[in-house]
Amino acid sequence: MNKTKIFHALHHRDEPLVLPNAWDFGSAAALAAEGFPAIGTTSLGVAVAAGLPDGTGVTRDETLTVATRLARLPVPVTVDIEGGFSADPGEVADFVARLAELGIAGVNLEDGRSESTLAEPEHQAELIAAIKARTPELFVNARVDTYWLKLQQDSTLARVERYTDAGADGIFVPGVTDPVQITRLVATTALPVNILYTAHGPTIATMAELGVRRISTGSLLYRTALAAIVDAARAVRDDRPFAVEVPTYRQVQAITAPGS
Amino acid sequence: MNKTKIFHALHHRDEPLVLPNAWDFGSAAALAAEGFPAIGTTSLGVAVAAGLPDGTGVTRDETLTVATRLARLPVPVTVDIEGGFSADPGEVADFVARLAELGIAGVNLEDGRSESTLAEPEHQAELIAAIKARTPELFVNARVDTYWLKLQQDSTLARVERYTDAGADGIFVPGVTDPVQITRLVATTALPVNILYTAHGPTIATMAELGVRRISTGSLLYRTALAAIVDAARAVRDDRPFAVEVPTYRQVQAITAPGS
Repeated sequence: MNKTKIFHALHHRDEPLVLPNAWDFGSAAALAAEGFPAIGTTSLGVAVAAGLPDGTGVTRDETLTVATRLARLPVPVTVDIEGGFSADPGEVADFVARLAELGIAGVNLEDGRSESTLAEPEHQAELIAAIKARTPELFVNARVDTYWLKLQQDSTLARVERYTDAGADGIFVPGVTDPVQITRLVATTALPVNILYTAHGPTIATMAELGVRRISTGSLLYRTALAAIVDAARAVRDDRPFAVEVPTYRQVQAITAPGS
Repeated sequence: MNKTKIFHALHHRDEPLVLPNAWDFGSAAALAAEGFPAIGTTSLGVAVAAGLPDGTGVTRDETLTVATRLARLPVPVTVDIEGGFSADPGEVADFVARLAELGIAGVNLEDGRSESTLAEPEHQAELIAAIKARTPELFVNARVDTYWLKLQQDSTLARVERYTDAGADGIFVPGVTDPVQITRLVATTALPVNILYTAHGPTIATMAELGVRRISTGSLLYRTALAAIVDAARAVRDDRPFAVEVPTYRQVQAITAPGS
């Protein structure tokens, strides 16, 4: 079974898929080595690591660079492509086809757009259909940004239905944490529903009971990394004991060793 | 005063310069925002983030990419260029001149080479002299890898003297933590001596008393970041409370906002 097929299957097990989101080769490889069966990307992390603004469609090349590196991993990788980096369905499908050729197993395609606006659901459905027509095997996670952007929330279920009909393989509604709303989402589509993990939201066990099939961390790990290095650098500067247990130089170097 | 002049001056204050090493724009910008007056890079982090092996001379292009991004920071940046990515003094000087044109304030040039060998000190001195002839204003930190590689340690002081005479602006001997050895290094050269911080080595206060002028973190923060994200992802997966305090999405997004 290739990595793309494995990735589809990971959405249909007894337990939901807990999908950590990385932003470069090192973060992804470290998470894969920890035993996570698949790795996603966070567009915030990819953007900020490269010094670019997130969510404005300017990270197309950087996303491709990161995807090329992550495709080497032994586990399936799904790539956040923001809104697809183009309004043209053919161009979006072309971009995703390049990712598929690299061996990338899935993409996240969001209907949020720059300047905190939402795409028309008809147009978004065209993008999804174009991708699925070109690369039917690739897992398309259709992200509905109504809760994330706090816009047109009453259009959420209609968007879920439309993206399901357009051929998406999964539905992602970041910002939803209320069990009643999660239940409603799960009832609206036959597709696996993805919820964004938050520290103060429902537990993995609760989400599993509600029928959630995929739980991703979004930008949380990237933000964790930044907090950790600033804390550590401050401890060094202020001459406080450095208490964090970290891997050795050799252990980290081994991440990029041949065969790893 | 431009960033390069500021960087030189930071080696001659009452307190030693505590220099955190970053590996991409986000890590560097977060550390600059925390108030560190200058930022270095870690070749391990730059390499592994890009999926490349460290210390084998293959990260030249990636180093240039990262340097281009970091040059935007409001503080001086010094770039780890491993052994210079070439055995030819003119090529090494050309590469450093490109960094200087970007606004990079300094470089680390090490005499360690691939396959855990050491450069001949005569050859290393030629590289240093070539850089200083081409870009005299740029701070060249000459790294002596005898302790790091545990090779020819009795040649250390002779290397320090030779690199000093070749025109280096600072001397870096990673792996030295013994106060007696540090004192001997400081006595051997008039240049600012750089020591690598380690969790179990001398404190910043002790190193300051011994005359150390610069204390860098090497790959420590990169290794801290990897440890932090693996711990956090494991906590999510195992449904343990997520106790880490992290910046918000908007706070991280602001790192790449215009003017930041």
